[in-house]
Formats: sequence, structure tokens, C-alpha cells
Amino acid sequence: MTVSETQAPHGHQRHTQATGLRRYLPFLEWLLHYRRADLTGDLLAGIIVTIMLVPQSMAYALLAGLPPQVGLYASIFPLIVYGLLGSSRVLAVGPVAIVSLLVATGISPLAELGSPEYVQLALTLALLVGIVQLLMGMVRLGFLVNFLSHPVLSGFTSAAAIVIGFSQVKHVLGFSVPRTEYFYQRVLYTLNHLGETNLVTLVIGLGSVALLLYFKYSLGSLLGRWGLKEALIMPITKSAPLVVVLVSTLAVWALKLHDQAGVAIVGAVPAGLPPVTMPTLDPSAWQFLLPTALAISFVGFMESISVAKSLASKRRQKVDADQELVALGAANLAATFTGGYPVTGGFSRSVVNFAAGAQTGLASIITALLIALTVIFLTPLFYFLPKAVLAAIILVAVANLFDFRTVKHTWRYSKADFASLVVTFLAVLAIGVEKGILAGVATAILLFLWRTSRPHIAVVGRVGESEHFRNVLRHEVQTCPHVLAIRVDQSLYFANTQYLETAILQMVADNPQVRHLVLIFSAVNFVDASALETLEELNRELRDAGVTLYFAEVKGPVMDRLSAIGFVDEIGQERFFLSTHQAMRQLECV
Amino acid sequence: MTVSETQAPHGHQRHTQATGLRRYLPFLEWLLHYRRADLTGDLLAGIIVTIMLVPQSMAYALLAGLPPQVGLYASIFPLIVYGLLGSSRVLAVGPVAIVSLLVATGISPLAELGSPEYVQLALTLALLVGIVQLLMGMVRLGFLVNFLSHPVLSGFTSAAAIVIGFSQVKHVLGFSVPRTEYFYQRVLYTLNHLGETNLVTLVIGLGSVALLLYFKYSLGSLLGRWGLKEALIMPITKSAPLVVVLVSTLAVWALKLHDQAGVAIVGAVPAGLPPVTMPTLDPSAWQFLLPTALAISFVGFMESISVAKSLASKRRQKVDADQELVALGAANLAATFTGGYPVTGGFSRSVVNFAAGAQTGLASIITALLIALTVIFLTPLFYFLPKAVLAAIILVAVANLFDFRTVKHTWRYSKADFASLVVTFLAVLAIGVEKGILAGVATAILLFLWRTSRPHIAVVGRVGESEHFRNVLRHEVQTCPHVLAIRVDQSLYFANTQYLETAILQMVADNPQVRHLVLIFSAVNFVDASALETLEELNRELRDAGVTLYFAEVKGPVMDRLSAIGFVDEIGQERFFLSTHQAMRQLECV
Repeated sequence: MTVSETQAPHGHQRHTQATGLRRYLPFLEWLLHYRRADLTGDLLAGIIVTIMLVPQSMAYALLAGLPPQVGLYASIFPLIVYGLLGSSRVLAVGPVAIVSLLVATGISPLAELGSPEYVQLALTLALLVGIVQLLMGMVRLGFLVNFLSHPVLSGFTSAAAIVIGFSQVKHVLGFSVPRTEYFYQRVLYTLNHLGETNLVTLVIGLGSVALLLYFKYSLGSLLGRWGLKEALIMPITKSAPLVVVLVSTLAVWALKLHDQAGVAIVGAVPAGLPPVTMPTLDPSAWQFLLPTALAISFVGFMESISVAKSLASKRRQKVDADQELVALGAANLAATFTGGYPVTGGFSRSVVNFAAGAQTGLASIITALLIALTVIFLTPLFYFLPKAVLAAIILVAVANLFDFRTVKHTWRYSKADFASLVVTFLAVLAIGVEKGILAGVATAILLFLWRTSRPHIAVVGRVGESEHFRNVLRHEVQTCPHVLAIRVDQSLYFANTQYLETAILQMVADNPQVRHLVLIFSAVNFVDASALETLEELNRELRDAGVTLYFAEVKGPVMDRLSAIGFVDEIGQERFFLSTHQAMRQLECV
Repeated sequence: MTVSETQAPHGHQRHTQATGLRRYLPFLEWLLHYRRADLTGDLLAGIIVTIMLVPQSMAYALLAGLPPQVGLYASIFPLIVYGLLGSSRVLAVGPVAIVSLLVATGISPLAELGSPEYVQLALTLALLVGIVQLLMGMVRLGFLVNFLSHPVLSGFTSAAAIVIGFSQVKHVLGFSVPRTEYFYQRVLYTLNHLGETNLVTLVIGLGSVALLLYFKYSLGSLLGRWGLKEALIMPITKSAPLVVVLVSTLAVWALKLHDQAGVAIVGAVPAGLPPVTMPTLDPSAWQFLLPTALAISFVGFMESISVAKSLASKRRQKVDADQELVALGAANLAATFTGGYPVTGGFSRSVVNFAAGAQTGLASIITALLIALTVIFLTPLFYFLPKAVLAAIILVAVANLFDFRTVKHTWRYSKADFASLVVTFLAVLAIGVEKGILAGVATAILLFLWRTSRPHIAVVGRVGESEHFRNVLRHEVQTCPHVLAIRVDQSLYFANTQYLETAILQMVADNPQVRHLVLIFSAVNFVDASALETLEELNRELRDAGVTLYFAEVKGPVMDRLSAIGFVDEIGQERFFLSTHQAMRQLECV
């Protein structure tokens, strides 16, 4: 035995451990291979995302019912943690619109808006979201989020965009609307109080919206025509929020609009790094917040993973769903203890981060450091910032959440999927965001059960001289009168077993000359206990009707079970065939 | 045009109507062809079932918390209605154990046991059950009951047998146990109060159980050895309940056991036909009772349809599930207005009815008339009947509800099905009968989703020189290195689409020499909108990895959708093959 041989296992083990470590600490991967060239991209992306994030984070904090600095705090340590642990290199984590909406709906029944208890409950919610996501990631339950189907998520997102957008209308109109349980009540209240609109606020709000839309849709091509380099155009167009913030703040300060015209402003934002904070440890609050925490964990993760995956695939990189859960969970725990509130990966900021050239998690860390500098030095500048401008920033951002393409596509593709989209959309507007998404998930599951409970059953015949058998209604095939070959296009389980029995007996009754019935199980992936009983019953009933039952193309895993329970012996080994062709040859039908 | 030609459509229409009428009024079928020979069977069966039903109906009424005569009332008009409308000719409708238990759990939170309100709420429950079953039958929603899978029903029935059996123990011990929310509380209470046992009552109760068991298991063979005719043995053995009722009543009366030894007796049962009764019209009571009504409708129907079907198939008769719902619904409406409570087809009485030779619904009507005679003339005889005897009758009856065979069979066949059985069983005992069955249904659905969310995926190769392709791990097959043929054994939908994508990409990564990937869709019965997106993504990812994607054996309905949405054109028509064999020939792999 040589030395190298004895060491081999250790070497192998070491290698595996390194892979494991790199898997759980993805920053080892990029930090050890960091190239100077990466830094330019990371730095530029970090700066541009900061420019977007400063006003957005304050806006989303207000949407969540929290003081503006909470949004800034949630954009420091959580970003550093995600930058180190995230498997996506370009995901831009922080406050996002939909999670902020869920925070507001979840906490507002428990504490008064903006009160210290309210702020502490937001920390508690971040803690719960962190625990849920961390646990799900560690025990590899990431697949659970798949129960949120695309149509349900699309319907939810579009409806949430309406709810969020409408929640900002009051800031643009300049009067307050009481929080009520149902969306339509707030719409009615707003319509009834339109007379209280503050015109100066309205002008500031609409002006900001117009400016933001101009930057977004027209300025880029104008600058392009002027011959500006692409690398310069993006920083300029993406600074739109910063521009409206600066212009409007200066205008309010110079014209004293907050005093003279009653324009609502952000007011004093405390300076300095985030405080160390603790969540509530009251178990009844935890229990009450748990459903909201689950909703945020799922919805937040879905938003995050979908953008992370689509961006990673553009650069041939991989995203690990379970590691993403761990990283987002850890980011939420960081938010809990540093004065933040629940965070996740945001769609538009991640796209900008990617386009601006972010190469590694360092971009995220640079953003965090710049936000930290902002809260230390720049908060006094936000004193005269009108709330209507933050509302305008949200309005323009959530307009992107509408997903007409998916709606149209789903309508064309499948009415059942479309139904789950519409139910979710309407339910969110009618009964609220959390119950709405639950109703959507339930609808999607029920529609799936409904689909599988009335399986497609095809009588098949031989295609030409081949060994292939297909539906007699769709293909030119040969059949023979004494044999009925039936393909069942569904696994057999409790919800469809009665339907199947009735349908097959009906087919036999309709074809009195039939002596042999071949059940083709190529599409049967399992047979549950209820269905097994039905098959035994069917065998008896067919025997009584003078028809012999055969099986073809039973899959391995299904066959194993049917053998073990004695069903194969009960029917007779010789009546099971590997292929339909063999069965038909035996029955002298080919 | 001749006269006969013009009349033909009318003639046809009339014929259809007659079939329709016979379908909805099944008694037309047997009444029009009634043979004298049928009468002997119907009469004998009617008499024997009456002998069983008189004590049972009173016992079950007490189990439901109702006065004994309510059980008798529920055994008159509902039986006549079912006899006329039922599609089963042998189902014996009336009070049954499990429905009585559900009645007790559903009503007891609303009114004091045995109070007039309690009795009226039982009528209301019968009304709701009647409406639910009638509506479900008329709009052909009978298939909905299939969501109650066999393992769930088996677990529920066994647990309900324990709950029912235990509820009778107090009558045998001769002291009262307060109704509590949880089963274990009643068990603990009983154990703590065993010292209060009334010994005379215990002797009567255990003696009755012993006598009933003797009649049931030993007397038949003894009489057989004595040379008695089979036709005589059954009436004798089935009269066991009547015998214990007579003997014990005489004993109590003669020895004055109710006075001297404190044996609880039935007491005064009012004589005369059932009164005309009206249910509560209070909407809040309806709302509260609705979940119970749904549980009774489903569970009652399942008990009924399963025995009806199994008995009908023994005589080559058919049972129509939707008509059964209509008939049972109508029977419950009859119970509502004639002083009864919810009824359904009972298992053991139906088997006796069948074995005693019932040929038509007339057997049921004869039973009803005999019960009517009983309530008119015989109720004074029940005054001294000990409650412990009725409890003994229930105890012996529910022992049959244990279904060890299904438990063993399910354990051997499928651990997932067994899990749903055990969860239902434990949930019924731990959290109550109604919530327990809901938990069971939810478990069965979740397990089904779990199963379908991690589909079996097989790499296949060619079997010998045939055109048949099977799993490389299970069969001797030929493959070639540059082509990977993968069969996906599940419909593609939101819950499994991520899993599938990951698994396929992993397989491609594990086989770097692969240039072509053939997805075999023989087991894919539909592709939902979420899965369609994944397929588009998979196609892009494989292209980036230098692998071309092909499809084989895509079913007609699936192909229609994929074509309509443009997916087939996106992939390329030429990359879809009717059979795997054609695809492999094209790729030079066979």
C-alpha cells in the first residue's frame, strides 16, 4: 500500500468538504478568485443601485406603515449578509413593494400605525420570516414554494400592484384615508373625499410621476441620439428618483410649501447607524404573525428566486434554491437585530444591478456601505422631502408588476390556469392580500384535482404496420371487434377511480361483441389503495359480463406494488404484457 | 313523407321520457313487473329487518341524544320514500350508528341534550342533509364523494366505532359521563368514576352482550347441527336483539330492578303515529349546522352507496350514485317533517335484508308499515326496557365497523395510503369526529400532491429488436451514448415542474457525451401554464449546453394545446415524433 493510496480518501473527503463549505458560504467562491476587472462593474452597480434604493427604501417603509429610516436600516446589514451567503451574484436585496404591503396588512390589526409597538412587531415579523426561510432552506423544503403556481403568482402580483398603487393615491392627493379591512371601502372613502385634495401636493405628485416616466421611457433614446455612451446613459436614467427627490426637496424648502400649502413632508430622520434592536418575545404575537410570516416567506422567496434564476441563466450561472432560502433567511435575521423589517430580492433593482455590471456579491456590499454613509451623513437632507414624491416613486415602480403578457398567454393556453389567475386576482382585491393568495393556492390545487378526477380515456388501435398504438379518434389505426384496447391517461387514485370504472363499463356495454379488454397503463404512474379495490371490482364485473381483462405497459414501480399485494396472481401473470403490441398479438388482433 | 316517418321523432321522444321517468322513479320499474314470487322474499325480509330495527332505532336515537321514539319515527316515512325512489332494491335505510354520532357532536354545542330545541335541531339537520343530498344528486355531483378515499373512510369508521362503543360504556356501567369536547377527557372521567358502577346494570349489560354474541356466532351452527332449515335459522339468529329486549324487560318488570337496584330504563314512549314536525328556520342555526350536515351527507352517502353497490353486483343489478343521493335526500326530507332525524342506508341491516331475500323496495315499505304498527300499539312494552340493553345492542353492532382487513391490506400495499388511514383514525380520536375526517381528507390530498410533485423519471432503451422502449434500470435494453431518452411518469404541473427541470439538467450534466435529449410524454396527461414556461426554459438551457431537445409520444390533447400556443413551432415541428421508435431512428440510435 502506497502513501498516496492511503491518503486518497482523506484527499477526497477534503475536496468534498471544500465543495460543501463553498456551497454554504458562496462568497468563498468569488472572493478567492476576485479579479480587478470585476471591481469596476461591482462598484458602478453598487452606486447605481444605491441611488435607486435610498428613495425606494424610504417609500416602501412608509408603505409598510413604518418610519422612513427603517427602510434605510433594512438596506444595510441584510445586504451585507446576502452578499456573503447568496448563491445569486446579482440579486439586489432590500425592502420591496409586495412584502411591505404584506407587513402592513399583517401588523396593522395588532398595533397603531407607526407606534413603537408597530415597529417592534415588524422586527418580530422579520425574525419569523428569517426562521421560516432558514429552516426551509436547511431541510431542503425549497420545493414547497412550487405550490405557488405561476398563474396564481401572476394574479396575486397584479392585484397587489393595484392595492399598493391605490395606497399611494392618498399621498398624491394630500389627504389621509383610514385603514379599513376591505379594499373597496378605501376606494369609496377616497372617492367621497376627493374635495379635500391638496392641489399643490397633487401637482408635486403628478409632476414627479411625469418626470419619472420621462426618464424611464424617453430620456434614454434622447441621450442616445445625442451620442452619449451606453455606459453613461444608464446611470443618468436610473437616477430619476434621486432627481425628483432633490428637485422637490429644494422646491418645498425654498417655497416653504409644507407651511404655506400644507404639503406633507418626511420630516426629521434620525442620523447615525442602525440601533441594535430586539423583537417581541410574546408568544401570542408570534402566533398571530405566523400566517403573515409564511406568506412573506413564500411570496418573497418566489419574487427573489424567479429574478435570480432568469438573470443567472443569462450568464450561464446557477442559483441554488435552498441556499437562496438560507441567504434570505439570514438577511431577515440581520434585519431583525438592526432596526429593519422583512426584506427580499427586488425585481427591478436586481435587473439594474445586473445591467450595470455587478459581477459578485461585493456589489451588494458596496450598496450597503453607501447606504450606511447616507444614514450617517445625509438624513438631514430628507427633512423637506414631500411624501407625494415617495408615493410617485412607488406608483411608477408597481406599474411594472402588472403582467398582461402572462394573463393573455394563460388565457390562450389553458382556461383552468386562467381561472386560478382570475380567482387569485379577484380574491386579493375582495377579501385581502393574505386570504386572497390562500384562495388562489386552494383554487389551483382544486383545479388540479378536478382535472385528474376525470381522466382522458382513449380507445387505441394500431398505427399502420408499426408496433405503436394510438387514439382511434385522432389517428388512422386498425382495430378488431373482439378486442377493446383502452389507454387510461391518468394515475388511478381515489378521486377518479369511480369515474374510470363507470366509463370502462359503459365502453364495454357499447361494444357488445368485445371479448377481451386490454388496459394500457403507459400513463398510469401509480395506483392507490382505493383504485386497487376498484380494479379488483372491475375484474369481477367484466368476468361476469364475459369479458377478460388484460394489462399492458404497466410501469415497473406500479407492477412491483400490484405483484406484492397479490393482484397480479389474482388476475394471472399471463394476462400482463410488457407492450400493447405483445398483448394484441396474443389476442390475434394484429 | 309517410305518416310513420313524421311520427318517429315523437315516438322516440316518448320512449326517452319513459326511460327518464323510470330512472327518477325506480319503483315504476319493479312495480310494473312485480311477481308473486317476489312477495315471499320481500315479506320475510321486511319482517326480519323490523325485528332488528325496533331496538336498534331506539338505541341509535339515544346515541344521538334524542328520545327513543325519534329513532322509531325515523324508521317509517323515510323508509317508504326510499323504497319508492332508491335505485338499490335491498338497501335498508334508517338510523345508523355513525350518523347518530355526528348528530350528537353537531347539535350538543347548541342545545341541552334531549331538550325540545335539541330535537328540533335534529329535524333541521335532517332538512339540511336532505337539501344537500338532493342538490348533489340533481346536479350530478355524486362524484364529489370520491374525495373520501377508502383508507380515509376506513380510518374514520374504525375510530368512530371506538368513540361510539365507548359512548355506550356508561350505560353498561350505569352512571352518567358528562359530554366533553375531547374523547380522552371522557375516558379519563369514566376511569376515575369506575367506583360508581351499578353492578346490576353491569350484569344486565354484559349478559346482553354475551347473549347477542352467542346468537351471532354460535347459535346458527348449533341449529344447523340440529337439522333446522337455513330459511328458519336466519330469522332466529337475527332476532337476538328482540330476545334480549324481551328477556331484560320482563326481568326488570318482575324484579322491579329500576326501583330496587337503580337500573336506568327507557320509560314512557308516546304511542301513536309520528307527529307532523317543522325544522328551525333560524339562519344562524343553519349556518352552524351546515358543516355537520355536509359531513353527514358525505359519510352517510358513502356508507350507503358502498353496501348498495356491493349487494347489487352480487345480483347483477346496477346502482345509480346520483339517484341514490336523490333518494336519500328525499328520505331525509321525509324524516324532517315526521319527527325523525338524519337517516342513511345501514350496513348490517342491508346485508340481512339482502340475505333474507328482499327483491324490491316493497321490503323497505313493509318494514315501515310494521314499525308504524309498533309505534301505534307496542310502545308501552318498552317502558321497563333497560338502557344497558340498548347499549349492548350498539356495542355488538359497532364491533363490525372495525376494519382490520383494510388496515393490514393498506399497510402492505402503500405506506402513503396507510398514513392517511392512521392520520384520520388518530385525528378522529384526538380532535373529534368532524375535524378528524376533514384532517383525513386533507392528508389524502396532500399525499397525492406530494406523490405527483416528485415524479418518477426513467431513462429508457430499446427492448431487443422491438419498437418498445423501457427503463434501463429494469430491463435488458440497448441505448446509445449520444442520445438520452427520458420518460417522465407524471403530468407536468406547477408542483413538479421545478423538480423535473433540475432532474433533467442533472442527467444531462452526468452524461457529457449526450447531444440529443428525447422527452417521452407517454405518461404526460397535461402540461399546465407553469410547466409550459419550464419547458421553454429547459429548451433554452439545453441549447446553451449544446443539447437538442426532442419530444415523442405527446398525446393528442396535450399536443393540441402546445401547438395552439406556438410551442411546437418554437421547438420546431420536425422535433416532435409520434413514437419513441421514430425519434430514435431519426437520431440514428436504432
